[in-house]
Amino acid sequence: MRAVDLIRKKRDGLELSNEEIGFLIQGYSVGDVPDYQMAAWAMAVYYQGMSARETADLTLHMAASGDMVDLSSIHGLMVDKHSTGGVGDKTTIVLGPLVAAAGVPVAKMSGRGLGHTGGTIDKLEAISGFSVELGKEQFFNQVNEIGLAVVGQSGNMTPADKKLYGLRDVTATVDSIPLIASSVMSKKIAAGADAIVLDVKTGSGAFMKTLDDSIRLAKAMVDIGTQVGRSTVAVISDMDQPLGYAIGNALEIKEAVATLKGEGPADLEEVCLILASHMLVLGGKAESEAEARKILQEKLSSGEALDKLKALVQAQGGDITQIHDLQLLPQAEIIVEVKSSSDGFVESIQAEEIGIAAMLLGAGRETKDSIIDLAAGVVLHKKIGDPVALGETLAVLHLNEVHRAGCVEAGNRVREAYGISTVKVQRRPLVFALVTPEGIKRF
Amino acid sequence: MRAVDLIRKKRDGLELSNEEIGFLIQGYSVGDVPDYQMAAWAMAVYYQGMSARETADLTLHMAASGDMVDLSSIHGLMVDKHSTGGVGDKTTIVLGPLVAAAGVPVAKMSGRGLGHTGGTIDKLEAISGFSVELGKEQFFNQVNEIGLAVVGQSGNMTPADKKLYGLRDVTATVDSIPLIASSVMSKKIAAGADAIVLDVKTGSGAFMKTLDDSIRLAKAMVDIGTQVGRSTVAVISDMDQPLGYAIGNALEIKEAVATLKGEGPADLEEVCLILASHMLVLGGKAESEAEARKILQEKLSSGEALDKLKALVQAQGGDITQIHDLQLLPQAEIIVEVKSSSDGFVESIQAEEIGIAAMLLGAGRETKDSIIDLAAGVVLHKKIGDPVALGETLAVLHLNEVHRAGCVEAGNRVREAYGISTVKVQRRPLVFALVTPEGIKRF
Repeated sequence: MRAVDLIRKKRDGLELSNEEIGFLIQGYSVGDVPDYQMAAWAMAVYYQGMSARETADLTLHMAASGDMVDLSSIHGLMVDKHSTGGVGDKTTIVLGPLVAAAGVPVAKMSGRGLGHTGGTIDKLEAISGFSVELGKEQFFNQVNEIGLAVVGQSGNMTPADKKLYGLRDVTATVDSIPLIASSVMSKKIAAGADAIVLDVKTGSGAFMKTLDDSIRLAKAMVDIGTQVGRSTVAVISDMDQPLGYAIGNALEIKEAVATLKGEGPADLEEVCLILASHMLVLGGKAESEAEARKILQEKLSSGEALDKLKALVQAQGGDITQIHDLQLLPQAEIIVEVKSSSDGFVESIQAEEIGIAAMLLGAGRETKDSIIDLAAGVVLHKKIGDPVALGETLAVLHLNEVHRAGCVEAGNRVREAYGISTVKVQRRPLVFALVTPEGIKRF
Repeated sequence: MRAVDLIRKKRDGLELSNEEIGFLIQGYSVGDVPDYQMAAWAMAVYYQGMSARETADLTLHMAASGDMVDLSSIHGLMVDKHSTGGVGDKTTIVLGPLVAAAGVPVAKMSGRGLGHTGGTIDKLEAISGFSVELGKEQFFNQVNEIGLAVVGQSGNMTPADKKLYGLRDVTATVDSIPLIASSVMSKKIAAGADAIVLDVKTGSGAFMKTLDDSIRLAKAMVDIGTQVGRSTVAVISDMDQPLGYAIGNALEIKEAVATLKGEGPADLEEVCLILASHMLVLGGKAESEAEARKILQEKLSSGEALDKLKALVQAQGGDITQIHDLQLLPQAEIIVEVKSSSDGFVESIQAEEIGIAAMLLGAGRETKDSIIDLAAGVVLHKKIGDPVALGETLAVLHLNEVHRAGCVEAGNRVREAYGISTVKVQRRPLVFALVTPEGIKRF
């Protein structure tokens, strides 16, 4: 078998066999297939796509390229959740305790990564003492004992995916739905998920800007799940404005805790309830979404979901008093209000701009070596549909003295991110579609 | 400027500027742009193509990537000829002396390369003592004195093209008309041509199998010539069967000499007259093709063309007695006849199979390090349209003892390359189209 023949085959729109895809991915992993051949193949895939079967094969070969986590010592079905990413997305911190409280075990591996804010584990580290460095044994035991553990990604998971993603990033081959879908799913499968709930964000602040593209990506991932025997459903949720009000690490922990208390933003609570319902159904803890929602609402109102978060914090060495009194979490030294320069209604909020503003204030990583300022970020006061008066606060910047230099630009970006209309504006729907193995349901 | 942005631009079907193409090619030449980015770009070009302007810019940047030959010390317009390659193509050896005899100076740089037989300089080296290692001064002086010199490619010409071609070969991006066209034309421009006559072969034995593709390639090359100020015309000639009868180095020298004596195969003579006519017109030695043909036929019948070949051989140290008596050229030890197993008419001759047979007998290079057997090859006795009787000789294999092992397979390939019909078969046209800056003329 020669890589050049497989590139040509794909170039000409033919389907590669499982063996052929394995030849490419295994060869690429060990360096037998060079970068330039994978780059040409990836560009051919960009134009020709891949069949559902090819995409599933690619996913499995990438998953098998490194360590595969064996979660069999954990009792119950493992339902993982993945979000394609957005601004202010703190759903994992709400969902983990919420579904664990309802009996679905959560053994979460999370990354740090680059972005407007840190990843889930960065956010959790805003709680003093919280450690994501758990041994394997400790990780499994904790899930079996309290139903929930969060650990940083370690070891050598999906190295072929990492290598290929790095290559795609510099060869303009990122925007390929089968390649995006297989990259996400390979990581979930290597992490040991039995079932997967996907939160595919759509809109200006999401990777997929249009609903059609978001549905296409969701379908590709659900198809992979179906092909490889992992029940998978995808919720297409809004990212045309940030989710909730808070963007920033400690700020998002506060909002997540408020949501677990039943006092969070309506949009965040609703998205969490929808995602958690699907997790409960896939985890065998409810027959229907409606039944699941009832269980989940009870877990919120009874305080059991919040208690689960507290148990997590305690188990992983975090300072539980900071959950009891959120004022004890890292607080920024400087608070700057961004005010509206006109009367009207909020028509749009460019989520990406808000994210960049948060990053300028120190909340995220621009490079791998950036140090995150856990207290920094942006808190919105107005969302789409809200009325706003001239001079009224649109959002508040939280920053420490050390990031003072970024304050003016961050403020300008936040102000300009807001579109104000003189006429009343409809609120946006939260969820646009549901993609399951049975089909696509648009709302 | 970032290479990834230029790849994306081409991927999305947009036109790159001259500066952008220069950034890629110069960067690739010096190693600033890595192989994997050029591979992705080449695949994007495969799908999206390039405008005439982009193709011309690419050509000039590749030509400028290495040494540019300055032929200004040679008197007269330099008209170069290029063939896209085929089996039994010895036109250069006929054309050089023929157009030189008519007053168009020929300063030919030629390669060796891989293939069914050697390149033009390998063929010329079948003449004992013939040397293609001429100093620059000697090369120019010889052209000014006798009108004709042939030298092996030396120095560092079009390194960007060499590097890109090598990359395309292993990334399934060879079959792109703008990339093929710019590769050919960059070499001609770097070699100092004022005008170019292209012999674009079409058919089963050619790189371009269909007439439409051949015309497309011809048009792309003529467009480049027009854009960069080099008068260029392309003749689309037949390669559905080998040209002439001889395939092999010394065998082709014999056939070329016969043609210069007016005793060559009709198809070879006709293709040479057509190509040479265009060379004379572009070189300013005739007003029209018709006038050029008259001059050329006179040069053949007067013996002046043959004398020019003799002058070339003498000037470059070759044994002139081998031209006077062709029997003195390398002769194979073994002659094997391939006979027809049926009665009928030759309907087809798969040129590529004949070429492979010649290579099996030692006539060509499989790898860079192969040693060519100058005496070896195949001589056809029958061509398309010829009647043939059961047991009659279709072709003759010429080989030395050392290649005895390849004889049976070569014989089988030659036999199977012949398609025999029971009904009378029309002879094929020799030339299908002419592509000039004014347009495409199909015959």
